[in-house]
Amino acid sequence: MRFTSEASSDGFREQLFTLGEIPGVLWTPEGATGTRPLILMGHGGGQHKKAPDILIHARRYVAECGFAVVAVDVPGHGDRPVVEEYDRIATENQARVATGEELAPLIADFQALVARRTVPEWRAVLDAVQRLEHVGPGPVGYWGVSLGCGLGVPFVAAEPRVRAAVLGLGGALASAGDAARIAVPVEFLVQWDDERVPRAEGLALFDALASAEKTLHANPGRHGDVPAFERDSALRFFARHLG
Amino acid sequence: MRFTSEASSDGFREQLFTLGEIPGVLWTPEGATGTRPLILMGHGGGQHKKAPDILIHARRYVAECGFAVVAVDVPGHGDRPVVEEYDRIATENQARVATGEELAPLIADFQALVARRTVPEWRAVLDAVQRLEHVGPGPVGYWGVSLGCGLGVPFVAAEPRVRAAVLGLGGALASAGDAARIAVPVEFLVQWDDERVPRAEGLALFDALASAEKTLHANPGRHGDVPAFERDSALRFFARHLG
Repeated sequence: MRFTSEASSDGFREQLFTLGEIPGVLWTPEGATGTRPLILMGHGGGQHKKAPDILIHARRYVAECGFAVVAVDVPGHGDRPVVEEYDRIATENQARVATGEELAPLIADFQALVARRTVPEWRAVLDAVQRLEHVGPGPVGYWGVSLGCGLGVPFVAAEPRVRAAVLGLGGALASAGDAARIAVPVEFLVQWDDERVPRAEGLALFDALASAEKTLHANPGRHGDVPAFERDSALRFFARHLG
Repeated sequence: MRFTSEASSDGFREQLFTLGEIPGVLWTPEGATGTRPLILMGHGGGQHKKAPDILIHARRYVAECGFAVVAVDVPGHGDRPVVEEYDRIATENQARVATGEELAPLIADFQALVARRTVPEWRAVLDAVQRLEHVGPGPVGYWGVSLGCGLGVPFVAAEPRVRAAVLGLGGALASAGDAARIAVPVEFLVQWDDERVPRAEGLALFDALASAEKTLHANPGRHGDVPAFERDSALRFFARHLG
């Protein structure tokens, strides 16, 4: 793990790093020492580790809860090189949708392919970040919606350090099997008029989670219209389970 | 409106009253003067105006938000006389369910019948309580699940003073038409394994609400198993919309 830059303002410390070929960012309270809860955040499709929504959440987890937050670029996103195979599949999928094929199963297959790389990458990121003195081996939470859900479900299923997860805007097609191996508390977001994830698919993924405590939050609007009050709710959810 | 008893403890003032034949209870912060938001709470079937869940919510709305809270007994419940017609219908319904009829439509018809009495009663209660100096004509919220939803949906649809409502554990059969006339923010509770309200009926009632801001909270478990953290969420919901 190599730190490449560091900055602090308003009590919010940002450290950019690379772990092998993975570019990442770690946020902690300025001056923090000792072990604390850590949230790993998975960004959405076409976005990156410092996307606005990630950053808004991260600032609050740091400022209001004293947590550490880490995010890394998914392969083919942010500061990472293009992945020829992903681009080829994306182009093929566009053509298939143009001929009338359903979008959801194509997205699901693609996310399952990407997850085969990101699950081991994210586990290695946890290993590295939790060795830092100002993070340490505390409880871990995962936050990710859309692509961050498609990649997050297999990650949370595989990673016993994750004690609570906010997931959503994803369907059961890719990951119902992995969801059935998740037993930690989950807050799950559904957009009631999601143009990318059929409502029944989202409800089916929530249904597939084996967690004794899981809570579905559904709101009107399209895929990108999650209301701002869900940020408050995610913060309280993590504070309740990791704090 | 006639007050029949009054007591205060720990900053929580309780006034029992009757309005015509309706027995009710009003809770306010001890020593409060002037206008404040008011929550009307509708109790569940077989319960009453001071049922434990009502009281737990009311204490928090008063203590943490400074709101007033009012609850009254539904006809045939609490301190009110038996309603022969309701008892006869309940007995008939038990017999019909025993012969294999579905429970949900029978509950829906019964709640629609009771609502014809409770909607005008509750509107009269708002009139009376809002004339009190320590309540006044502030914004009104409604909280009610199960029977409190079946009666609450037509009430909220009919009453323009209600600015926000927590509803749930109810289905679309009785009240989809009324739900389509509700445009205020709603937080709506579904129990994922509800033995009384089929899941699809609960989702359909949420779907039927015309509100631009509505949020569905679904949790695992049976009709009576709503998790305690939903109380926190209801409180924040009312604080956001009425505070």
